[in-house]
Amino acid sequence: MTDPVALAAALIRAESVTPARGAVFDVLEEALAAIGFAVERFVAGEAPDGPVENLLALRGEGGRHLAFAGHVDVVPAGEGWTGSPWSGEVRGGLLYGRGAVDMKGAVAAFVAAADRQRGGTLSLVVTGDEEGPATFGTVALIERMAARGIRPDWCLVGEPTSARTLGDTIKIGRRGSVNIWIEVAGRQGHVAYPHLADNPVPRLVRLLAEIDAVVLDRRNRWFQPSNIEVTDLHVGNPATNVIPASARARLSIRFNDEQRGDALVERIGALAAAHGGTVTARVSGEAFLTEPGPLSDVVSAAIEARVGLVPELSTTGGTSDARFLSRLCPTVEFGLLNATMHQVDEAVAVDDLRALADIYADVIARSVTLA
Amino acid sequence: MTDPVALAAALIRAESVTPARGAVFDVLEEALAAIGFAVERFVAGEAPDGPVENLLALRGEGGRHLAFAGHVDVVPAGEGWTGSPWSGEVRGGLLYGRGAVDMKGAVAAFVAAADRQRGGTLSLVVTGDEEGPATFGTVALIERMAARGIRPDWCLVGEPTSARTLGDTIKIGRRGSVNIWIEVAGRQGHVAYPHLADNPVPRLVRLLAEIDAVVLDRRNRWFQPSNIEVTDLHVGNPATNVIPASARARLSIRFNDEQRGDALVERIGALAAAHGGTVTARVSGEAFLTEPGPLSDVVSAAIEARVGLVPELSTTGGTSDARFLSRLCPTVEFGLLNATMHQVDEAVAVDDLRALADIYADVIARSVTLA
Repeated sequence: MTDPVALAAALIRAESVTPARGAVFDVLEEALAAIGFAVERFVAGEAPDGPVENLLALRGEGGRHLAFAGHVDVVPAGEGWTGSPWSGEVRGGLLYGRGAVDMKGAVAAFVAAADRQRGGTLSLVVTGDEEGPATFGTVALIERMAARGIRPDWCLVGEPTSARTLGDTIKIGRRGSVNIWIEVAGRQGHVAYPHLADNPVPRLVRLLAEIDAVVLDRRNRWFQPSNIEVTDLHVGNPATNVIPASARARLSIRFNDEQRGDALVERIGALAAAHGGTVTARVSGEAFLTEPGPLSDVVSAAIEARVGLVPELSTTGGTSDARFLSRLCPTVEFGLLNATMHQVDEAVAVDDLRALADIYADVIARSVTLA
Repeated sequence: MTDPVALAAALIRAESVTPARGAVFDVLEEALAAIGFAVERFVAGEAPDGPVENLLALRGEGGRHLAFAGHVDVVPAGEGWTGSPWSGEVRGGLLYGRGAVDMKGAVAAFVAAADRQRGGTLSLVVTGDEEGPATFGTVALIERMAARGIRPDWCLVGEPTSARTLGDTIKIGRRGSVNIWIEVAGRQGHVAYPHLADNPVPRLVRLLAEIDAVVLDRRNRWFQPSNIEVTDLHVGNPATNVIPASARARLSIRFNDEQRGDALVERIGALAAAHGGTVTARVSGEAFLTEPGPLSDVVSAAIEARVGLVPELSTTGGTSDARFLSRLCPTVEFGLLNATMHQVDEAVAVDDLRALADIYADVIARSVTLA
């Protein structure tokens, strides 16, 4: 039987700061091939956002098809670790290493779970670029699945969703995200002769005050209210006696399923235009929701059976690759404790890793037989 | 007789980017000694704002005492001159060179004027640091004058005050100037979890909107309204998904004689405090006014006699060393056209330079005999 702790340690030791290539996929491919998966690896994209390695694995046919999605790239280790961030060593019941919870541990748990359940159809959709630009990662995997005629019925993303104890939270959606850059242009001049200049700062201030007063929506059944934050201001004028030529601000909007990214950009753009400002924008992802139903019921039941608590159905937090996968089929995210993710001394409790493998095995057993 | 054009050219050739030392003072000292002035040169101050060379010259006793104040330091030449910025050459009726109008030309014109008028008491108060920090320039000269018991009745500052034609404007006052740095502190956090952070930008925006609505005063008899400009905004946050820890702005306030620098700092500080902000400030100079009277009458009459127009009495523009001298005695500023000051190919019309010497000579003649 596949040991999730040993496999997670082996994946950690295959150092794979984003974008991941080569060795870490070799470890995963070997483990999957050993339990009967057909594995396809491919490299997608070009600089600057690529190339990126991805892995698609499939086993079985008939019954319901559950896809497990995840990534084997990790964020950089950073400074100050107690041991090596690539040791994959167990100390005091904890498996240490970059990626232990985000999310090599969950990938290993799913492989171990798959080794125990042979019914239905399972696939693994694993990218080497989730922590980076994610341009040629899960998006390319979804294209490849379409080309191969692979159509899962459910998708489980293994991101670390648990907050205080394993199983307390699953995510059934995520807010969308858009960044908007605002520039208000004026005319430079000497502060002693303001009538010969046009200071753009007061216009930017009035615009930002208007934006601050905007209420996009209210809390709804599954989502927090959409929220606008001004994350940067910039004029860059070193001269105390000069009225500047332009003033800039940057917004981050995290929005719920009542908004669309392009509509928000248009709305902010119209406000900016009224003050002589212009905007550029990048929508990182739209909001999505998998309404509670068979998939979340299965995951909740498996969690309750193993750890004795009913998870909260949440849509909080940042974006994840579930924003892409949710377009294919109902998608839920569930994984380890996120307390140490992206931090120094990232670690997972060995007991949690084994419990997660048990829960994933139960999810497989319950989902492949669903009507 | 001293030729103002030849002396101005000699001063220009003695390159003297602020702070000026040595050669340019040698040229001036020689010209003044030749026409009977007792000259004292001294070096004041230490790094970073010093050392600075200054010159104090005195001739005559009895009658009224007119002081001429100016500087022989210049701003850097910059790139793109047609000829050398230090050539002091005449082409097409124009004397070219850095300092031609600001204000070696006026210094030379005053020496030429003094050479023609021998009555009363004259002094020259000339610094080598007006364009720099001005910490050890005119301020040190005023201290030296007090120590020597030199007390002028009137002061004429030779800054280039003419706007479109020589003699169209004299300055009888200047606005004050204060720079104020505002910082609003918050608590950094992830944009996806705004309840765990405290974004300082909306508070800074509300504060700046309040400041924008402040009306400090109205136009009065001699001054424009006091004016507040926001000259810089700064957050410096490169991360699109991070709520920043602090936000800053910088104000420049040019204020009339109804305001005081420290009171303005206190007022802005109180507004800032209401939004959790703090301020630091630097008052560059208080507003001052020499009410129209005997001195401005004399200068106006001398201008009208020579060029046939009545000058406007103005308080516009930036700060000048008149802010210090006006504490001693009634002070008026009058000099060349300011169109090319601080610019490439700075130049003065030879005819204007000779006319200025004539006007200064008339001012001397009229002022030393005033009641």
